[in-house]
Amino acid sequence: MKHSTAQTTTRNLNPIEQLNRDMQSGMARVNQTIEHYVGSDVTLIPEIAAYLVDSGGKRVRPLLTLACADLLSYDGSEIPALAAAVEFIHTATLLHDDVVDESPLRRGKKAANLVYGNKTAVLVGDFLFSRAFQLMVTSGSLDVLRILSDASAVIAEGEVMQLSTERQPDTTQDRYLQVIAAKTASLFAASCEVSAAAAKRPKTEQQALQDYGMAIGMAFQIVDDILDYSAVQNKLGKKTGDDLREGKMTLPVIMALAHANDMADETAQQFWQNILSKPIEQSDFEMHFTQACTYIEQADALRLSMNLAKKYIDDGKAALNIFPHDTRKQSLLDIADYIIARDY
Amino acid sequence: MKHSTAQTTTRNLNPIEQLNRDMQSGMARVNQTIEHYVGSDVTLIPEIAAYLVDSGGKRVRPLLTLACADLLSYDGSEIPALAAAVEFIHTATLLHDDVVDESPLRRGKKAANLVYGNKTAVLVGDFLFSRAFQLMVTSGSLDVLRILSDASAVIAEGEVMQLSTERQPDTTQDRYLQVIAAKTASLFAASCEVSAAAAKRPKTEQQALQDYGMAIGMAFQIVDDILDYSAVQNKLGKKTGDDLREGKMTLPVIMALAHANDMADETAQQFWQNILSKPIEQSDFEMHFTQACTYIEQADALRLSMNLAKKYIDDGKAALNIFPHDTRKQSLLDIADYIIARDY
Repeated sequence: MKHSTAQTTTRNLNPIEQLNRDMQSGMARVNQTIEHYVGSDVTLIPEIAAYLVDSGGKRVRPLLTLACADLLSYDGSEIPALAAAVEFIHTATLLHDDVVDESPLRRGKKAANLVYGNKTAVLVGDFLFSRAFQLMVTSGSLDVLRILSDASAVIAEGEVMQLSTERQPDTTQDRYLQVIAAKTASLFAASCEVSAAAAKRPKTEQQALQDYGMAIGMAFQIVDDILDYSAVQNKLGKKTGDDLREGKMTLPVIMALAHANDMADETAQQFWQNILSKPIEQSDFEMHFTQACTYIEQADALRLSMNLAKKYIDDGKAALNIFPHDTRKQSLLDIADYIIARDY
Repeated sequence: MKHSTAQTTTRNLNPIEQLNRDMQSGMARVNQTIEHYVGSDVTLIPEIAAYLVDSGGKRVRPLLTLACADLLSYDGSEIPALAAAVEFIHTATLLHDDVVDESPLRRGKKAANLVYGNKTAVLVGDFLFSRAFQLMVTSGSLDVLRILSDASAVIAEGEVMQLSTERQPDTTQDRYLQVIAAKTASLFAASCEVSAAAAKRPKTEQQALQDYGMAIGMAFQIVDDILDYSAVQNKLGKKTGDDLREGKMTLPVIMALAHANDMADETAQQFWQNILSKPIEQSDFEMHFTQACTYIEQADALRLSMNLAKKYIDDGKAALNIFPHDTRKQSLLDIADYIIARDY
């Protein structure tokens, strides 16, 4: 089954903006819930929370929760709470990831750990994580709690796994896919699946939404990793080159290394070994980053990475085949297509 | 109502060791559950988990969960899982606290963040925290999930609150009590309360166990803070003087400062202002620590702190008045007494 490429969007809105508009009242409730639940008598917490909320983000995950519930014609009052819970888990992960990676920019603003200190970032992350579980409890669904606590454990495993691959030139593509499945795609999958669980839909529908979320989550992370070698800094918010700086073994690097090995290109092999073995001097960074991009281009690694992302998007769209085609399903298909079309 | 002081223990076991023995089969199941749930295919995780498990700790919180279930004659199969969940939340908090405080010793071993790095400590903490929620889900009780997710949020708030009082000489005793209620006592309270919730006992009993846990948790933290100015290093595991080094506003310091103010003792006031304003040079530390202990002694602050701890212990024991007296209740009374008698 083939779907026409997304063109139900008009007025120059991209599919995420369009969905935000379609889900306006739901998203308003999500935002109210978020504002309510970041509340605390402890002064620093609402301050940092406001900082995070202002930092924006596109709320992709809560939008998916709402859109999946909509697909199932389910409008249970717990859905906005679950969407908020998913966003809290995501934000907590970002906070802890910032502590870990010392990345200087996050969504175009200084990372919270640089503004407030590592200590506070860890603890506020813990607070948001706890809030996520409080929100899930209000849903009254143990299924939902199981899905999201499982996802949380898998995310943490994925983050530790990623850590163990940093600066390891022998990291395989399979290992990379395992890492991103755990650290990124599992939360996309859970964001979609919880709606079906809350709606008490049959296992097949729950599985279909999980598969859809998993696949588009894989594509989302691959595109993110591509953009780190290609995006314009201000648009992305994230600083291009961060991954290289941190010695992250992302798909473009793995492919470029494989190409150097296939070609027995000792100069390129030596370059990657050197650059990955230890942090790069700030003064040399631009030069090394440019060289890395050249090798990545020689390996055609960005195009090949994008092809893999497209394959995931196709899989994700195919997972929705069990649902009849209508405008609600089209929204989810449009989101899938947009994930590989975005340049942010 | 007055209870005789604890003397049901024999064979030179302290009440915690005694309870460990009485609850042997329950604790064996708790330990099995812990070992099972720290399992992960991600290499580093079981390694660190084993490190933490070997580090021991006295498992006070899971023991309380078992002992409270025992008091209620409840032996539901979910109790060991909940006891393990409580221990996981505690361990996750320690891991994140270590990152935060850079305390060089924890339970007599090097803190995990020094052995494995801050990054890993944060992420493994997140993993254990997620595992705690997976365990609670297996209990099938939303009440339990509510109690423990509430406690987790309060703990995080308490940790942030504590951060905001660090190196603040104007921190009041009330503020200190608020901090320790949140960061420590709330988990003791939840450890006790979950048993009543799982057993579906009336609100009064649930409340009584919560009050008991809360009160002994307050005393536990006060004693901990006293020991930081009085314990022998090897026995405590924790290095004496850590709190002063980190500028923590614990009860002995707050009382010594209040005494200096009451006496209009400008030398002492100046000393505290100086020593709290910034980190102390390692080479000067012994001298300053000795001076701090002298001022604390002049204020009689350790004895006064201990008096407050005793008051909490009395409250905690009184909370159990609604239960008939038997050996199971006596165990909980003995634990309470032991919390202020311990020298570790």
